[in-house]
Amino acid sequence: MKQDKAISSAVIRRLPKYYRYLGMIQDRGIVRISSQNLSEITGFTASQIRQDLNHFGGFGQQGYGYNVTKLREQLGKIIGLDQEHTMVIVGTGHMGQAICKYRGFRDSGFRITALFDRDPSKIGTRIDDIEVLDVEGLGEYIERNHTDIVAITTPKAAAQSIADVAAEHGIKGIWNFAPVDLRLPEGVVLENVHLDESLHALIYYIRNIKDYVGV
Amino acid sequence: MKQDKAISSAVIRRLPKYYRYLGMIQDRGIVRISSQNLSEITGFTASQIRQDLNHFGGFGQQGYGYNVTKLREQLGKIIGLDQEHTMVIVGTGHMGQAICKYRGFRDSGFRITALFDRDPSKIGTRIDDIEVLDVEGLGEYIERNHTDIVAITTPKAAAQSIADVAAEHGIKGIWNFAPVDLRLPEGVVLENVHLDESLHALIYYIRNIKDYVGV
Repeated sequence: MKQDKAISSAVIRRLPKYYRYLGMIQDRGIVRISSQNLSEITGFTASQIRQDLNHFGGFGQQGYGYNVTKLREQLGKIIGLDQEHTMVIVGTGHMGQAICKYRGFRDSGFRITALFDRDPSKIGTRIDDIEVLDVEGLGEYIERNHTDIVAITTPKAAAQSIADVAAEHGIKGIWNFAPVDLRLPEGVVLENVHLDESLHALIYYIRNIKDYVGV
Repeated sequence: MKQDKAISSAVIRRLPKYYRYLGMIQDRGIVRISSQNLSEITGFTASQIRQDLNHFGGFGQQGYGYNVTKLREQLGKIIGLDQEHTMVIVGTGHMGQAICKYRGFRDSGFRITALFDRDPSKIGTRIDDIEVLDVEGLGEYIERNHTDIVAITTPKAAAQSIADVAAEHGIKGIWNFAPVDLRLPEGVVLENVHLDESLHALIYYIRNIKDYVGV
């Protein structure tokens, strides 16, 4: 299943969608599914689905289709959901708390190990039984405790310096919610959730429905 | 500046990025900028930038470059930020509150007019001086009060029925945070913020850095 050619981000962005849809299909008690039916449910074409899955080795059986549970498991493995991942959240405002308390993440193997803030009134408190630590100690924490991801939910002015500290101390992934474009050294993966951009796109499409092609 | 051909979603998704970058450039006191310099700052190629802007008429002047303030203003108009937009939020958990309290939205002309929840202990309270109403009244509210967008920040089980009610009562845009794929009638714009998918992509890239091409 290993391959050397880089896989396009369009394909990779569809994997979590397939994964979610398969969970939904599984919940309905469906055991196997053809790429045709999967196409009807997901809205992607059957040939698109087959092509996407072929990047990872292909999982269907001619004339049988896909085993729903097995395919979902394999997609989970490809994404990396079969392993636990640790995350710390910097910034304990509403967005930080929303992420901290969101059950969905835990169910898919994410563990939030610490929260960080710079507000003295928050440091030392607990949110969902996770301690809020002083952001000054972020670098040391990352070095001493295995941490896969730093989620940044601070105001934008603080985001770059937090990303710098995290990168210097060997973090591999930054999940950024601050409305700013971070600069990171090579080898550090940046994933942005830019709510402004999302809302702006929505506004544009409302006013220019002709350009809207669905999601 | 009007055009009839549909503009690809890739172009539209870049507009808010240009808009944000131009704000940053403006904050630095820069008055005009060449597409070459804009390219260095944004990471998009100069020809890409010129092509993108040409969809909307092009704004540069040969040998002069772009007037930063004017270009930003024009992009804001294209997106629709020169007009006020009204939004209601359904679901007053942390995500709903994070959106409600996020200043950035207000600064760009969004006005949150009401919050909705089904929890009797929340109905009638106020968050940031905005009243929490009973979700049962959502449809009537939309009909009586001009509402551009319904943001859905409820658990996933409730999301589709809320979207249905909103669509039936004439809403134009749904901003969905629930980890579920909503079905909507034609003419209603759906914009998803799927945090699960974002996190899954991050995990994938951390483990398969060869596929990572940056953001």
